[in-house]
Amino acid sequence: MKSTLLCLTSILWVVAAHNHLPDGTAVVTEPQNVVAGSPGTPWPMPKSTSEFGTVMTIDPTNFKMLVNIKNCDIMNQTVQRYMKLTFLEKCLPIDSPRNSLSNSKKNSEKNKMIKANGMLYNISVTVLGKCEKWPYLNMDEQYLLKIDSPDLPGKANLVSSTVWGALRGLETFSQIVYSLGDGKFGVNSTMILDSPRFSHRGLLLDTSRHFVPVSVLKQNLDAMAYSKLNVFHWHIVDDQSFPYESLKFPKLSEMGAFIPKTHTYSQEEVADIINYARVRGIRVMAEFDTPGHTQSWGKGQPDLLTPCYSGGKPNGNFGPINPILQSSYDFLAEFFGEITKVFPDNYVHLGGDEVDFSCWKSNPNITDFMKKHGFGSDYSKLEEYYEQKLVNILQSLKKSYTIWQEVVDNGVKVDPNTVVHVWKDPQVQELQRVTSMGYKTLLSTCWYLNYISYGKDWPKYYTCDPQEFNGTEYQKSLIMGGEVCMWGEFVDGTNLISRTWPRAAAVAERLWSVADLKDADKAAPRFEEHRCRMLKRGLRVQPGNGPSFCECDFVVS
Amino acid sequence: MKSTLLCLTSILWVVAAHNHLPDGTAVVTEPQNVVAGSPGTPWPMPKSTSEFGTVMTIDPTNFKMLVNIKNCDIMNQTVQRYMKLTFLEKCLPIDSPRNSLSNSKKNSEKNKMIKANGMLYNISVTVLGKCEKWPYLNMDEQYLLKIDSPDLPGKANLVSSTVWGALRGLETFSQIVYSLGDGKFGVNSTMILDSPRFSHRGLLLDTSRHFVPVSVLKQNLDAMAYSKLNVFHWHIVDDQSFPYESLKFPKLSEMGAFIPKTHTYSQEEVADIINYARVRGIRVMAEFDTPGHTQSWGKGQPDLLTPCYSGGKPNGNFGPINPILQSSYDFLAEFFGEITKVFPDNYVHLGGDEVDFSCWKSNPNITDFMKKHGFGSDYSKLEEYYEQKLVNILQSLKKSYTIWQEVVDNGVKVDPNTVVHVWKDPQVQELQRVTSMGYKTLLSTCWYLNYISYGKDWPKYYTCDPQEFNGTEYQKSLIMGGEVCMWGEFVDGTNLISRTWPRAAAVAERLWSVADLKDADKAAPRFEEHRCRMLKRGLRVQPGNGPSFCECDFVVS
Repeated sequence: MKSTLLCLTSILWVVAAHNHLPDGTAVVTEPQNVVAGSPGTPWPMPKSTSEFGTVMTIDPTNFKMLVNIKNCDIMNQTVQRYMKLTFLEKCLPIDSPRNSLSNSKKNSEKNKMIKANGMLYNISVTVLGKCEKWPYLNMDEQYLLKIDSPDLPGKANLVSSTVWGALRGLETFSQIVYSLGDGKFGVNSTMILDSPRFSHRGLLLDTSRHFVPVSVLKQNLDAMAYSKLNVFHWHIVDDQSFPYESLKFPKLSEMGAFIPKTHTYSQEEVADIINYARVRGIRVMAEFDTPGHTQSWGKGQPDLLTPCYSGGKPNGNFGPINPILQSSYDFLAEFFGEITKVFPDNYVHLGGDEVDFSCWKSNPNITDFMKKHGFGSDYSKLEEYYEQKLVNILQSLKKSYTIWQEVVDNGVKVDPNTVVHVWKDPQVQELQRVTSMGYKTLLSTCWYLNYISYGKDWPKYYTCDPQEFNGTEYQKSLIMGGEVCMWGEFVDGTNLISRTWPRAAAVAERLWSVADLKDADKAAPRFEEHRCRMLKRGLRVQPGNGPSFCECDFVVS
Repeated sequence: MKSTLLCLTSILWVVAAHNHLPDGTAVVTEPQNVVAGSPGTPWPMPKSTSEFGTVMTIDPTNFKMLVNIKNCDIMNQTVQRYMKLTFLEKCLPIDSPRNSLSNSKKNSEKNKMIKANGMLYNISVTVLGKCEKWPYLNMDEQYLLKIDSPDLPGKANLVSSTVWGALRGLETFSQIVYSLGDGKFGVNSTMILDSPRFSHRGLLLDTSRHFVPVSVLKQNLDAMAYSKLNVFHWHIVDDQSFPYESLKFPKLSEMGAFIPKTHTYSQEEVADIINYARVRGIRVMAEFDTPGHTQSWGKGQPDLLTPCYSGGKPNGNFGPINPILQSSYDFLAEFFGEITKVFPDNYVHLGGDEVDFSCWKSNPNITDFMKKHGFGSDYSKLEEYYEQKLVNILQSLKKSYTIWQEVVDNGVKVDPNTVVHVWKDPQVQELQRVTSMGYKTLLSTCWYLNYISYGKDWPKYYTCDPQEFNGTEYQKSLIMGGEVCMWGEFVDGTNLISRTWPRAAAVAERLWSVADLKDADKAAPRFEEHRCRMLKRGLRVQPGNGPSFCECDFVVS
């Protein structure tokens, strides 16, 4: 038995590098590779893999995925999805409506469990625990996948403690199966024991700077599931627009959305997205960022924002949420009361970044309030006052929360369960500082994918490690993971998927796989394969490695 | 009568600028605008516009486009297209197959030429010349568009010398008509006299580094027509792949395409693309770049490329086309004989850029040849020898040609009709030098749109002017225009349209409109409108101005 990390031959098609550069300096220099994918390799890389040197053949019309737990909707839907995804022969239509992924293959009557020479007739999926309904922080995603292993020759089997592990294991299974070209598929005998390095592997989308259609959010959830990301951080509203249709405060979107009739998320749509994520083992963590980033809130909720003053009177502009009025906190209590019901995840992201003090400073009522409370001219004390009251609201609602790093930078006392989200440079010092305060920490600083640049940029994201800072073992253990961010200034439904993927998958492997897997050149053929796989599965995923081709890139219209 | 450049109110929705920056330096600073479009404004800006302060109403079910010339396929198809595009009420499906743009509106029997109070029942299109079939360099694109002008009250009329002028005029008409919301449309009384500043307004796509499906090439031609670009420079083959299916040399694509079965352009597809471009007044200038950039040619045409030597014998690698063999020129004569028939445009782009001498230097047969011809060790003389023979082939085929600047840099004597394509920095010196040699010149240096960067980059392309260099009036007059380039290293069907547009439209206005229209801030609402219009017409066009929304961005799936 050869125990090793998967190491498949990378096929490089080397051609001369006649790269057009407009500065005229770089003429023909180095050979440029056309990176070809490596079929049958998974992304992200499992923790440990053994190979046994044999191949089993699968006839998809005579193959079953057998699950031990019954009446578990999440497993039923998962098996349906993976029966389709594992045995794709044709390219799925690009941008197809996301709900149409039903299993079109009909298993025939004669489909029975028969062990035959070299043929695999089923994979048996055993979930040791109960059918959990909602994914959560620190859920168990471990699985053991065996294909024709010495102790179970001729069989395939997947064992996990939870449905989440089964989901991840079936994704891996679907990736290591490869087409043999004649309607048959092959899978190498192997044993894979896998679990994630970090438990919070997120992706942030911003639906305020541009509206993003539900179908595109679902495509993104598909891509996340294919890459084993498990938190959709939904930065749903911001200054520019308020697309969330509140039950209690419908005016917020009626006045604050770009176009209320078309550019909003109804309660049904929000529930649909949460459920779409749930059955893929993805948490939806909603962010309602306050007290700054709230210009769009002010349109539908009068008196919520601070009136700014010029020359001794209000000038018509507004600043952050008004922290000195009890009505603000009454509103927030009611609003977050709704939010914590609509979004079932244990965590809400409270934002708290970039609070502009200039409007507060201009307002004489706030000046009075500052004096009365002995804040002097330290407006971060006022911010702290606001955050403390907001945090108390959330605690009374029995929810945990994530916050941008500024909140703790400003000394707000938060629940020890709080997750602090680091997004500023200098990255290593920030990680050091926040973990030294004992908070669970997420990293995003080096993963702002909205900052595009020319060329093959994914190795830059791939090699950034959230535990690379000076700190104790305990500090390192506080790193819960991180999040890819795709802020919305320059993306909407037209380019969100293609611009986010496959680049986000680089971070997905960093957050799932072992720390010492860091060689981007070695990873390139697997990365290419993952891109081509996503394309084949109907996602509009852009080139990542430079000149290349995929089996299914030609069907894009 | 107020004679002025169109100056429509730009609607700015000002909100605070809470831009997430990962370096933590730029917190809240300046207000950030959500740029809204300005309905009824055209892009690119016409040369001169007068407005008369009235509005006419159009009922699309009772409106005709009347054309004076009969049996002119180009005009028939154009009227069909613009009857649809002018009166779009719903968003067209994104990425819809490009041939489906048929006119779905049925004009009723009672549709007669009746002049009524404020209603417009037709536009009369008069083409003074004959029905030309093929667009060409320096074709006449001028038109005069009158809507309810004092000399023709209550009427709309478009006059041009050629079908090309009529095409451009109908595009403008379709852009200045705006929806009144109840199924009716409005158009302001106006007189527009328009013609392009430059006659060659091109866009280069590279289908070798990645394959681009025919449907996507057609979408791009639509976007070009909407922006009045008139040359599709098809960089069809290169080192990485050879997707052109040659009639005489089918092995070139059989061996040189990424996947010959799916990643090639058949003769029928090439003809289809050329015709699709033709009826939109767009030339297709094919580039078959030699002697470098030909690695993919060598696979299907043995002995075409120069064998490279190491240690006195061939090392298995190949360099540019072998310039010392008569068989190379025999092949080129036959190959370009085919190409000049397949591509009817007067111009072929011969490439000629970035010729690597290292392989030629290594080859002892080439060393002998150099000696025999008295070239010494000056390999640019050998390149000149090759180019001269290639250019002679094209002259014998009675075709004109475009070449990258290196060819004349190296002193090759080319036909005075040659168009020289400048792509290197320093831009102004290069333009100066090439025009001082008396050649017609195209600029691309500042318009390499494949070099992406974060943020609102279109003003950079918008403000680059091809006549801004020190030179005589005669030198300036040699500037034929320029080309936007979207090289294919990082684009394929998944992201080509969204990444190219609306950015390429910035260059389209530079090349069409008057030189002193240079204020990108003033242009922004029109640019936004143009983006939203392209989206409404079913093109996957990405955001250009930062946070924003379009009527039809929510339908993207």
